Amino acid sequence: MGKPESLPSAQASVDRDEVIRRLGQVLPPANLLHSREDTKPYECDGLPAFRNVPLAVALPENEDQVRAVMRVCHELGVPIVARGAGTGLSGGALPHAEGVTLGLSKMKRIVEIDPVRRTATVQPGVRNLAISEATAPYGLYYAPDPSSQIACSIGGNIAENSGGVHCLKYGLTVHNVLAVRLVTIEGEVLVLGGDGLDAAGYGLLALTIGSEGLLGVVTEITVKLLPKPQLARVVLAAFDSLEKAGQAVANIIAAGIIPAGLEMMDRLATEAVEQFVHANYPLDAEAILLCESDGTPEEVAAEIERMEAVMRASGATQIRLSKDEAERLRFWSGRKAAFPAVGRIMPDYYCMDGTIPKRRLAEVLQGIARLSEEFGLRCPNVFHAGDGNLHPLIMFDANVPGEAEKAAQFGSRILTLCIEAGGTITGEHGVGMEKINEMCVQFHPDELEVFRAVKRAFDPQDLLNPGKAVPTLHRCAEFGMMHVHRGQERFPELPRF
Amino acid sequence: MGKPESLPSAQASVDRDEVIRRLGQVLPPANLLHSREDTKPYECDGLPAFRNVPLAVALPENEDQVRAVMRVCHELGVPIVARGAGTGLSGGALPHAEGVTLGLSKMKRIVEIDPVRRTATVQPGVRNLAISEATAPYGLYYAPDPSSQIACSIGGNIAENSGGVHCLKYGLTVHNVLAVRLVTIEGEVLVLGGDGLDAAGYGLLALTIGSEGLLGVVTEITVKLLPKPQLARVVLAAFDSLEKAGQAVANIIAAGIIPAGLEMMDRLATEAVEQFVHANYPLDAEAILLCESDGTPEEVAAEIERMEAVMRASGATQIRLSKDEAERLRFWSGRKAAFPAVGRIMPDYYCMDGTIPKRRLAEVLQGIARLSEEFGLRCPNVFHAGDGNLHPLIMFDANVPGEAEKAAQFGSRILTLCIEAGGTITGEHGVGMEKINEMCVQFHPDELEVFRAVKRAFDPQDLLNPGKAVPTLHRCAEFGMMHVHRGQERFPELPRF
Repeated sequence: MGKPESLPSAQASVDRDEVIRRLGQVLPPANLLHSREDTKPYECDGLPAFRNVPLAVALPENEDQVRAVMRVCHELGVPIVARGAGTGLSGGALPHAEGVTLGLSKMKRIVEIDPVRRTATVQPGVRNLAISEATAPYGLYYAPDPSSQIACSIGGNIAENSGGVHCLKYGLTVHNVLAVRLVTIEGEVLVLGGDGLDAAGYGLLALTIGSEGLLGVVTEITVKLLPKPQLARVVLAAFDSLEKAGQAVANIIAAGIIPAGLEMMDRLATEAVEQFVHANYPLDAEAILLCESDGTPEEVAAEIERMEAVMRASGATQIRLSKDEAERLRFWSGRKAAFPAVGRIMPDYYCMDGTIPKRRLAEVLQGIARLSEEFGLRCPNVFHAGDGNLHPLIMFDANVPGEAEKAAQFGSRILTLCIEAGGTITGEHGVGMEKINEMCVQFHPDELEVFRAVKRAFDPQDLLNPGKAVPTLHRCAEFGMMHVHRGQERFPELPRF
Repeated sequence: MGKPESLPSAQASVDRDEVIRRLGQVLPPANLLHSREDTKPYECDGLPAFRNVPLAVALPENEDQVRAVMRVCHELGVPIVARGAGTGLSGGALPHAEGVTLGLSKMKRIVEIDPVRRTATVQPGVRNLAISEATAPYGLYYAPDPSSQIACSIGGNIAENSGGVHCLKYGLTVHNVLAVRLVTIEGEVLVLGGDGLDAAGYGLLALTIGSEGLLGVVTEITVKLLPKPQLARVVLAAFDSLEKAGQAVANIIAAGIIPAGLEMMDRLATEAVEQFVHANYPLDAEAILLCESDGTPEEVAAEIERMEAVMRASGATQIRLSKDEAERLRFWSGRKAAFPAVGRIMPDYYCMDGTIPKRRLAEVLQGIARLSEEFGLRCPNVFHAGDGNLHPLIMFDANVPGEAEKAAQFGSRILTLCIEAGGTITGEHGVGMEKINEMCVQFHPDELEVFRAVKRAFDPQDLLNPGKAVPTLHRCAEFGMMHVHRGQERFPELPRF
């Protein structure tokens, strides 16, 4: 994990009063917070290990106000950190102590729903789930479904390129957004993307999605909607070893099946879940798979048959098919409640997010098990098996001296394991502050330099979310040192949920 | 269309002999062409309206040679134009008279096929169809299928983000490439993308795909393979008006059906085709639709039923279902032979490529019909209806004084029509030289400036394919003039096929 104090400070030291005075000229009083008691609640996002109280919090209600705030900050050289619902897990919305936090929560209007085009145009503050709720009357929905979808905003989803349990079949945010309006640091508006599959010019839409607020601020998003499948059913398969479950995942994919969802949980996770939500998971299994099929009844029947055959051939000790929608939801409820379930049985846990090639699943899981013994910390595994996105949950007690530090070292070792396996340090949570040091491990200096050059193309003064996502060469050098002296490094408090 | 002579010249005027001497130090003699008779064949690509004989043609056999050529050109400030099979239709591979054409045709090795991961790793010179041929034994194929797939290279497909008749369901090149090795102008290698759905850092892979050789040169590509569908069948539906056919397309999509292919041809096109390949199309129809379903027999049966119902409800005068694979291929043969078929009945034609929102299909087709009368030139329409990608074929005779000029003006008016309808000037052929002026119409100066800034991030000296795809402000100003004086502008010879 990165150290919060290593956030770069704004070019010149900022004149607080001047910034607040100038912002006050472009925002109504109710939309500008600057007293410490008002700004304190914004000091962190879903990764409270890092905290900074911002200089001010701007809460624009429309694009013109966003543009005005950007112009003021650009002119005064003040850092801007955009913030959605604040549910991010990598500290991407951690405020800058000398910067303005740009909260998009008041921009939550659903601008247009076009059931024929199957698109919805919304403001960034709209909740992920609210899009599907608003389009349900047309039999449509928005596919990406992060576990936090009740609370997280579509703007935040774009910043982190969020996924969910259905992204194996339906893709991540980047695969489901058709266009955005992007306000640049100069306060100009760029319209990126559109109706067509292809667009002239460079693919700036895909570049923007997942850029963690470093390139601009999105003020309007047009998403692709999908027709709600007529039917969805889940196969629950139990295995007596993680290896067999991992192999079953590889076999499903190799068979040319693309499940609507393909999730895996190990024994520690299922045990924690059962005590909490009673999803009726088999407790004698070392690992279970949840494999969903959706479509027309004919399609689902045909696909479920193939799925079950592969599971059986892969050595499943038990196979259950959801009888009805209620049981399908119960099967998923366990998976979706896994994080809080683990939180219930241990004071603290640290949710990791790494992606590996599916074929390396078994060996990486063994590596995590070895690390778990080495550090003496339990680590249930819950993950999007179909796309190799792991979410190990490192359990610890921050009140036991040294455990938080051990958890952090354990986490960093897991990320290194993912990189060594040919994977990446983020599957859907982004890099933010959390993994910025590991960026130095994953990427070659030449690659990091291209990232920085792209950043300069949009934000030459480095005012947009500075210090996040892409490390400086200096930081990587510093991290090299940290590697050597890691034992001596004081590790900050870790997230509570 | 842009004027070829308006390609920018290299920073300093180049010392030909020095360039050839230095390239000779890094390439075997057989891999470096510089005599005029050797370089002449490279003077144009699939858009022979533009011709330039390059200073030299480098034909590297491996990545190290590509890197060495890049380093030499970078050091000497010599423009580099990458070239695949030379089948591009927008002049993207038009050589620079003072530059080096970097032909990737010798790099045509299939590096690895992984049937379990369902990926193929290939060099850029590999033909699009060769990938599917090589992976067929595993029951796999590469989905994007441009009409030129027998000849065009995967490297060229990446430069133009090529599509094909199946991209409605399976996406364009950008949706089917997992990773590339990109050599920068400095000769460094960037590995972009990977196994995971998401990647840390900015989405440079998507940025690279479709960048028309302006950001770097791709030396290795890992593509996603799909299991060959068990069955595919085509519904051929006839309509007595273009409007009804256009509405049928909208209805299919609105019904939530995503056909494997959804193509439309108007009467002029079907007539030309029938005389040529006898695809057995109904000749009394004003428009026909070809609508394909693929999957398991159960899936296909269920989907075809829904497709036929929508076609009937949309006023189809006749519906035919391909009885067997032979008939399915015969139905497609007409569509795929449309360009040469039109070429047979008219000495010249100009193939346009624009994309519009599907819901504007009918009105844009009416607009093209009006323009056809205004210019007195016939214009059969063949297009990827499902994704709104139009390919009007403007028929003319370059030997009739003034017709080539009229055809070019007609084409430019069609592109403007697409932009006015909320579409874009390219669906899959790229901008290249052909549409660089229309970029000034489609994009706001602020947007063009961001494009240029991104270009500078990769290639500050503007050595990679200069003068293509993204116009300078100067060029846009010049084009404004050209608009006014277009009548006086001498229009270059147009492509023959």
